[in-house]
Amino acid sequence: MIFYLLDLLGVAVFAVSGALAAGRTGLDLLGVIVIAALTAVGGGTLRDLLLNRHPIFWIADPTYLIVICAAALLTVFYVHVLPPPRDALLVADALGLAVFAMSGAQVAEAAKLSPIIVVLMGTMTGVAGGVLRDVLSGKIPLILRRDIYATAAIAGVSLYLLLQALGMEHLWAFGGGMAVVVALRLLSILWGWQLPMFRLPQEPR
Amino acid sequence: MIFYLLDLLGVAVFAVSGALAAGRTGLDLLGVIVIAALTAVGGGTLRDLLLNRHPIFWIADPTYLIVICAAALLTVFYVHVLPPPRDALLVADALGLAVFAMSGAQVAEAAKLSPIIVVLMGTMTGVAGGVLRDVLSGKIPLILRRDIYATAAIAGVSLYLLLQALGMEHLWAFGGGMAVVVALRLLSILWGWQLPMFRLPQEPR
Amino acid sequence: MIFYLLDLLGVAVFAVSGALAAGRTGLDLLGVIVIAALTAVGGGTLRDLLLNRHPIFWIADPTYLIVICAAALLTVFYVHVLPPPRDALLVADALGLAVFAMSGAQVAEAAKLSPIIVVLMGTMTGVAGGVLRDVLSGKIPLILRRDIYATAAIAGVSLYLLLQALGMEHLWAFGGGMAVVVALRLLSILWGWQLPMFRLPQEPR
Repeated sequence: MIFYLLDLLGVAVFAVSGALAAGRTGLDLLGVIVIAALTAVGGGTLRDLLLNRHPIFWIADPTYLIVICAAALLTVFYVHVLPPPRDALLVADALGLAVFAMSGAQVAEAAKLSPIIVVLMGTMTGVAGGVLRDVLSGKIPLILRRDIYATAAIAGVSLYLLLQALGMEHLWAFGGGMAVVVALRLLSILWGWQLPMFRLPQEPR
Repeated sequence: MIFYLLDLLGVAVFAVSGALAAGRTGLDLLGVIVIAALTAVGGGTLRDLLLNRHPIFWIADPTYLIVICAAALLTVFYVHVLPPPRDALLVADALGLAVFAMSGAQVAEAAKLSPIIVVLMGTMTGVAGGVLRDVLSGKIPLILRRDIYATAAIAGVSLYLLLQALGMEHLWAFGGGMAVVVALRLLSILWGWQLPMFRLPQEPR
Repeated sequence: MIFYLLDLLGVAVFAVSGALAAGRTGLDLLGVIVIAALTAVGGGTLRDLLLNRHPIFWIADPTYLIVICAAALLTVFYVHVLPPPRDALLVADALGLAVFAMSGAQVAEAAKLSPIIVVLMGTMTGVAGGVLRDVLSGKIPLILRRDIYATAAIAGVSLYLLLQALGMEHLWAFGGGMAVVVALRLLSILWGWQLPMFRLPQEPR
C-alpha cells in the first residue's frame, strides 16, 4: 500500500516535470499531457516491456493516467498564477527518481535477475521517462550530458542490494537506497558535482 | 474484410505521408522507405507491444510491408513528375488517422480494457507513427505543437464508445466515430482551429 | 559457440562506435556508457521485443553488458592517448553490422517467418542501434541520409536466403552473406557509392 502511494507520487511528480518541460518548448494543451504522460510512465513501461510483464502497469490500473492528467492540468493552471517553485520541484523530482529506481529494482529482483540487471532496470525505470521527454522536446537528453542523475540511481540501487546481501531487512535496505538516491541527487545540485566529461577533439567526418 | 481493406488503406496513406516527410528532409531511397514504414506501422506496432499481441500485425501478414514499399516508391516517382496533391493528401491523412484510431480502439475493446485505455490506445495507434516520423526527421513532433490532430482521434473514439454505451449497433457507432475524426481534422485545418498553447516565460536553466 | 563469440565481438565493436559518437557530442562518462549500450544492444532488443523472445538476450546473459562497459571505458582511455584508428574502426563496424544482420536473420528464420520478414529483421537488428545512437545524440540518423549501410545488410541477408534456397549448406550461406555485407559496406566507403537521394523542392508549410 505504501509502495503504491509512493509510486503514484512518483508518477505525479514526473508528470509535473514533463508538463514544465513542455511549457518551455511551447506545446498545446494536449501536447503537454502527452509529454507529461511519457515522462511519468516511460521508464516503467520500458521496464515492463523488457521484462515481459503484462499487462503493463498503467493498462492494468488507469489510476496512473488520471493522476497524470490531473497533475499536468494543475501545473498549467498553477504557472498561470505563480512562478514554478523551483526548489520544491527539484526535491520532488529527486524523490520521484528514487521511487522509480527502487521500484524498478524490486521488480527485477522479484524476477530473480542478476544484480547487474537489477541495477540497470532500476536506473532505467528512473531515467527513461526523462530521456523520452527530452528527445520529444528536441533536446539531447540532459541526463546524458551533466549532473549526477542516473549515477544517483545506480548508487542507491547498488546500496540497496549490498545492504540486503549483508543481511539487513528488506524495508531498511529499501529506505537506505531511497535516501542515498535523494541525497546524492540534491547534494550534487547544491555543490555542482559532475561526472568527468568525455569530448573528442573536433575531427572531419 | 472491409476492416482489413480499410487498414491497408490507412497503411498506404501513412506511408505516402512518411515518404513526403522524408523528401522534405532529404534522405536516400532506402531512408524514404524506412521512414514511410515507421510512419505507417509505428502506431500499430506500439499498440501490439503494449497489449502483448503477438505476432505483431505486420509480422503475421507481410502484405502490409509490400503495400508500404509500393506506396513509398510510387510517391517518389509521382513527385518527380507532378507536385504532391496537397489537398487530396490532407483528406487521405485524415482518413488514415480515423482508420488507425478506430482499429486501435477496437483492439483495446476486444481485450476488455477500461474506456480510458481504449481511448488512449486508439489515439496512440493513430498518432505514434507520425511522432516517430518527426523524431527521426529531427523535428519536434508536429502533433504536439499545433493543430487538432490527436484531439480529433480522442473525440472520435470517445463518441464511438458513447454511442455503443447508449445501445447503438457496433457498425453505426464505428461509422460515427470515423466520421467525427475525419470531420474534426479537416474542419480544424479549414478554419484554423487550435488548442490553447502553454508556454512558460523564458527562465534561466 | 563461434556464433556467440561473433555476437560478443559485434556488441563490443558497436559499443566502441557508440562511445566515439558520444565523445563527438560531448557527454559525461555515464552518458558514454549509456549511448554505447544502446548502440550495441538496441537492434537486438528491438528484434527480441518484436518477435516476443523472452528473456531479452542481454537480460538472460549479463556478459553482454560487461563487454559493453569494458569496451566503452577502454575507448575513453584509448582516445586520451592516441587518436581513434579511423580505418580499423570502419572495418570493425562493417563486421559488426554483418554479424548483427546475419544473427537477426537467423533468429527470424528459426521462428519460421516469411523471407521478407527475415530480411527486415536482419536489417533492423543491424542498424537500429545506430539509429538510436543518432537520435539520442540529436542527429538525423546518418544511415537514413547517405552511405550504403542498411542496403549492405539487405543484400547480405537476401543472398544468405537465396543460397540456402538453392541448396547450399547453412554455414557456407552464412559466410557468403556475411562476406557480402562487409564487402558492400567497405567498397561503398572506398568508392563513395550512394543510393539516389530523394529531395522535394522547398514548399511552404
